[in-house]
Formats: sequence, structure tokens, C-alpha cells
Amino acid sequence: MTIDAPPAATARVEWALERFFAEREQKAESYGPEFSRLWGIAAEHSRGGKLLRPRLFVEALDAFESAAEAPGAIDRDVVDRLSAVLEILHYAFLLHDDVIDGDLIRRHRPNLVGTVRDLHPAAPTGSSMHWGTSAAILVGDLLLSSAVLECARLPLPASAHTRVLDLIDDAITETVAGEHLDVGLGDGVITPDLHTVMTMTTLKTATYSFALPLRLAAALIGAPPRADTELMEAGRHLGFAFQVQDDLLTMFGRHDAHGKDVLSDVREGKETVLVSYARTTDRWDEIADALGDPDIGESDAERVRAVFAESGAQTFAEELIASELDAAARVLAESKLPAHVRRVVTDCLERIKDRSA
Amino acid sequence: MTIDAPPAATARVEWALERFFAEREQKAESYGPEFSRLWGIAAEHSRGGKLLRPRLFVEALDAFESAAEAPGAIDRDVVDRLSAVLEILHYAFLLHDDVIDGDLIRRHRPNLVGTVRDLHPAAPTGSSMHWGTSAAILVGDLLLSSAVLECARLPLPASAHTRVLDLIDDAITETVAGEHLDVGLGDGVITPDLHTVMTMTTLKTATYSFALPLRLAAALIGAPPRADTELMEAGRHLGFAFQVQDDLLTMFGRHDAHGKDVLSDVREGKETVLVSYARTTDRWDEIADALGDPDIGESDAERVRAVFAESGAQTFAEELIASELDAAARVLAESKLPAHVRRVVTDCLERIKDRSA
Repeated sequence: MTIDAPPAATARVEWALERFFAEREQKAESYGPEFSRLWGIAAEHSRGGKLLRPRLFVEALDAFESAAEAPGAIDRDVVDRLSAVLEILHYAFLLHDDVIDGDLIRRHRPNLVGTVRDLHPAAPTGSSMHWGTSAAILVGDLLLSSAVLECARLPLPASAHTRVLDLIDDAITETVAGEHLDVGLGDGVITPDLHTVMTMTTLKTATYSFALPLRLAAALIGAPPRADTELMEAGRHLGFAFQVQDDLLTMFGRHDAHGKDVLSDVREGKETVLVSYARTTDRWDEIADALGDPDIGESDAERVRAVFAESGAQTFAEELIASELDAAARVLAESKLPAHVRRVVTDCLERIKDRSA
Repeated sequence: MTIDAPPAATARVEWALERFFAEREQKAESYGPEFSRLWGIAAEHSRGGKLLRPRLFVEALDAFESAAEAPGAIDRDVVDRLSAVLEILHYAFLLHDDVIDGDLIRRHRPNLVGTVRDLHPAAPTGSSMHWGTSAAILVGDLLLSSAVLECARLPLPASAHTRVLDLIDDAITETVAGEHLDVGLGDGVITPDLHTVMTMTTLKTATYSFALPLRLAAALIGAPPRADTELMEAGRHLGFAFQVQDDLLTMFGRHDAHGKDVLSDVREGKETVLVSYARTTDRWDEIADALGDPDIGESDAERVRAVFAESGAQTFAEELIASELDAAARVLAESKLPAHVRRVVTDCLERIKDRSA
């Protein structure tokens, strides 16, 4: 899940993240070397993302401030901390996602599960993997609770603080509800119709990745309820388009650029829009057996790709992305959002449209 | 993990818990029937505990108020919400603990993992268990984050609020650090000496179960730093004694009273004080193979029990409990805590001493 970004915009967010982890690592030292090392690994693995969510938040906030001709109106320390919170929440979700999916690769290299597992290759059979998986569960717990604690401690006026906490609460609930739907679809206990898969995608990714950063900026600035609603709607359309794009890139994109194991979605039987659409076509029987098969190889993947392309699933997904991006553009055009803010969201929309990895 | 309690004292805490879950269940309804059902199951499984932690907190707070001749000085809504938070944190830790340990039984019946697994017995092989485990990870995440959010929203004066958040933060970090040590000991990647096992026990259980409830009461009332330190020390001694007692009851107690699978600690190879002590004796070779063997039966367990009894491990553990309870009593006797508060802690100490299940 990557998107182009100028390196300069990320420097401050990276610094905020480093500070967060430095505080946590220092605290961890009193609990022994293994726990301290675990935090070092977590900090190391949190680096290297494109910081999409914190950057969107900071850009939207800057735009709101420019529009109000009040640059720096919001305490920069609060902005830094909230930008780090967005990345930390994201990383916590990824960690538990990887545990649930049994994934060992993320961003071109072993994820935290795989890294911790490989620290003790000589441990009794099974224990190395258990040690890695347990570490990811526990680090995810700490990241999740410290992200919320960081929000709890922000020195904000009462009304903005209440709003920030409500937004974080709703975003965590929606993301977990989306992940729960995703697991239910993968495990075959929830019926995989297209509508359910689209709901899952919005809940699991769109809310916390796009709607939350934009709405947090609006909350800090004290924007009116209408602006919040417009940013929520635009953010959900963008986030949905982003995720379908991500599924397409995982399936058809270049592994070296995208970073995820290209076969992982197929092996897991991940229920994407591509899969739900293909299920409704007469080509479905050709690939039904391959989806969810942990042992499939590149030739099966080729067969799956061909069916997605020829059955119309790929085209359907591409049109869906275009129509969601149009819907986001329409929300913006009809909105009363300041021009600066609309520009930030439009730029984000263009980056999704042009995305290749 | 149970302890005797008069039913009357629990009614208010039960009500606070029901309110917490009712709010969450209502919120869950908009995310579809499976997610809503999951919350119902979580609420159902959170019932039936003895509410040790919330009751200790409320009793300590009442005692502080009585001592200050200011009954009801602290907003009862805050007290109710924090008492629910203590139980919810506990339950969130249990859920992820059960996932990590692969346990399916808790409080005499299938735990959340087992219950959710059995909802879909016809799901493809492996999926039912995956559905149960994933549900427990996700519910644990939501409980943990909502417990912290509940603390964030408490209408408290700034200094008390800061203190409450710091205590919750430290308790979560310590509990997770303890669980991480526990897993490392079980997986054979951390050396199991007695000192490490005792540290693990204090971190994993004593802090959040005893020190945290007592210190939260002190924080709300604005007790001086010395009182906080005394309650922390007394709480850790009590908590350590409680956990060693728990390990003894799991090993030698009656399953029908204690509720845990009597063989689970042995099967998991759980590193308890009993095990660490036995390892230093010449009887160790007789039981080393049975510990951590997932297939052991009642006759192996009998052999393990006999070695624990005859090697002196049982006596060692019993003496450790007595000496920790003495240490707690000494902290109290030398403290400047109000007599009412000392009485609450002493009563707790007596209940641990007399505990049979």
C-alpha cells in the first residue's frame, strides 16, 4: 500500500514517529532485554511506509489554517503527536492483520512476526513461530493503547478534544468491524456478495485511512458539521477507490514496486471486489479451486489473473475506481469547503488515479 | 482465578459493566449481524467473574472517602466507569492470553474462542478455529481501546486525570511486558531462572490486579505520593501471593471449584514458581518430559503433582505466599495510610490467605 510523496513533506512526521518510539523504548528498558529489543524491532518496522495518513492530515490542517489566514493556529506539538498517532494506529492494525492472515512479508521484507521468529531459529519446533506471532499480538496491543493514550493526553480545548476522541473511537470500531467482516468472508462464514465486500472494504480501510485524517484536521480547526460530513463522504470514496486500486495492483502490479507477496491474496482466498465480481460470471468454476489454496504457484496465479481479466472483473474494478473518484470530486465541487482544503483532497484524488505501486 | 465476595458488593460494578457493553453493542449494530452478535458473546463471557479488581478499587475509594469524612466526594459516575474499566482491561488481557496459549476453556465453559468456533462447525477445515481466534484478537483490541477511551473521557480535574492516565498506561505496559516474558519462558527463548519467573508473575498479574485498583483510588482522592508508593508495594506483594496461590490451586485444587482446566498449565509448559523450583532439584528429570507435552493425560499429571509435592516445590510456593503476605502486612503497618484504607487491604490479604478456589 504505497503512494508517491515528496520526501520533504514526510520529515516532520518521521521525527514525530521517532519521538513516539524513543519514549516507548526508554520505558521498555526497565522490563528486560527481550522486551526492549522488541520495541526496537517495532520502531524499525514502522519505518519505510509512505506516511499517507499523517501527511494527508497535516496537509488538510495546513490548508484549513491557510484558508482561515491563521497559519500555526493549532499547537504544532498537537499536530505532530496526532500525525504519529495516525501512523501508529495503521501499524497496529497491520500487525494484527498479519497475525490473523498468517502473513510473514510486508514492505518487501519479513514483517515483525517473521523477524521475531527468525531471532530464535533453534527454539523447539513450533516455538519460533509462536514467539513471533505472540510478539505481534502484544506489540499491536501496546501500539493501539498508546495511540489512544496519546490522544487522551493532547492539550486541546474540551470541545475539540471530545471530537478527536469520538473520531478515534469510531475509526477503531469501524476498522475492526471491517476486519471482522473480512475474516468472516475468508473463513466462509459470511456470504460473499458484492455489496458485503464493498462494505467491508470501506469499513476496513477507507474510514481510518482517508476519512479520519481529514476529519481530525476539521476537528482541530473547529470546522462546521457540514465540513465534517463532506470530508467523511469524500474520504470514504477516496479510500474505497484506493483499496480497490490496491487489490488490482496486488493482482496485476509489479511485486518489486508494490511490496506485498503477489500471491498472498490468492492463497488467503481474500474476498476482493475482483473475486466477488468473478463469482457472478460463468468463468468462476475455472478459478474457484485456486482461491484459498495455500499451495498454489505462479502458474495457478496466471490462470486466476487471466480469468479476472477476461471475465470482466478487472474492467469492473477499474470502472468502480473511476466512479468512486468521480463521486469524491462531486462531493468536493458541491461542498462549501475552503478552496485550499478542496485542493488537498483533489491532489490526493489525482495521486490515487495515477498510482502505479 | 476466583476469590470469595459478598454478592451485594458486586451489584453496582455489574451494572456499570452492563452499561458499558450495552453502549458498545448498540454501536455495533450498524455493522451487521455477525459483529453485533460478537459483542453479545463478549458481554455474555465478561459476566461470571468475581470482579476482584473493580471491587478492590471501590472499597479502597470508599475507605479513603470515609477517612476524609467526605463520603461521595468523588463523582459516582466516574467511580462506576473506572470500576468497569478495570474489569474490561482484565477481560481484554484474558482474551489475548487465551489466544496466545491456545486455551479454549475459561470459567468452567468454552471461552470466547471456543464459543465462536462452535457457531460454525460446518465451516471448511481449520476455518472454524481461525474464526474463533480472530474474533478473540479483534474483541480484545476493541475492549483494550475502549477501556482507554473510557479513561480519556472521565470528567476529572486535570491533575487527577493525568495521574489516572499514567497509571493505566504503566499498568498496560507492565502487563504486556509480563505476558511477553511468560511467552518467552514457555517458548524456551528466555532462561527460566526463579528470579525471572518471579518478575514475570509480578508484572503480568500483580500490577494490574492489585496495585492498579488501589492506586487509582488514591489518585482520585488526591492522596499524597507516599500513599501511592505504599499501595503500590502492598499491591505487588498481594498480587504476587495471589498468583502463586493461583498456580498452586490450578495444580492441586479442585477443578470444579477453580474453573480452569487442571492440566492446562502442564500442557502449555507454563513456567510457574513450582516449575522453576522443581528444576533446581534432583527430581526434575522425572517430569521434564511431561511439561509442555500437549498430549499428557491424568496419570502424567499425577506424576507431576507428586514431584512438586515431594521435591519441596509445593512447600516452597506456600512459604513464598506466606512471606509475601507478611511483606504486604509490614508495608501496611509501617504506612501512614488511613486506618480505613489499611483495613480494606488487610481484608484483601485475609481473603487471599483463606482462598480455596
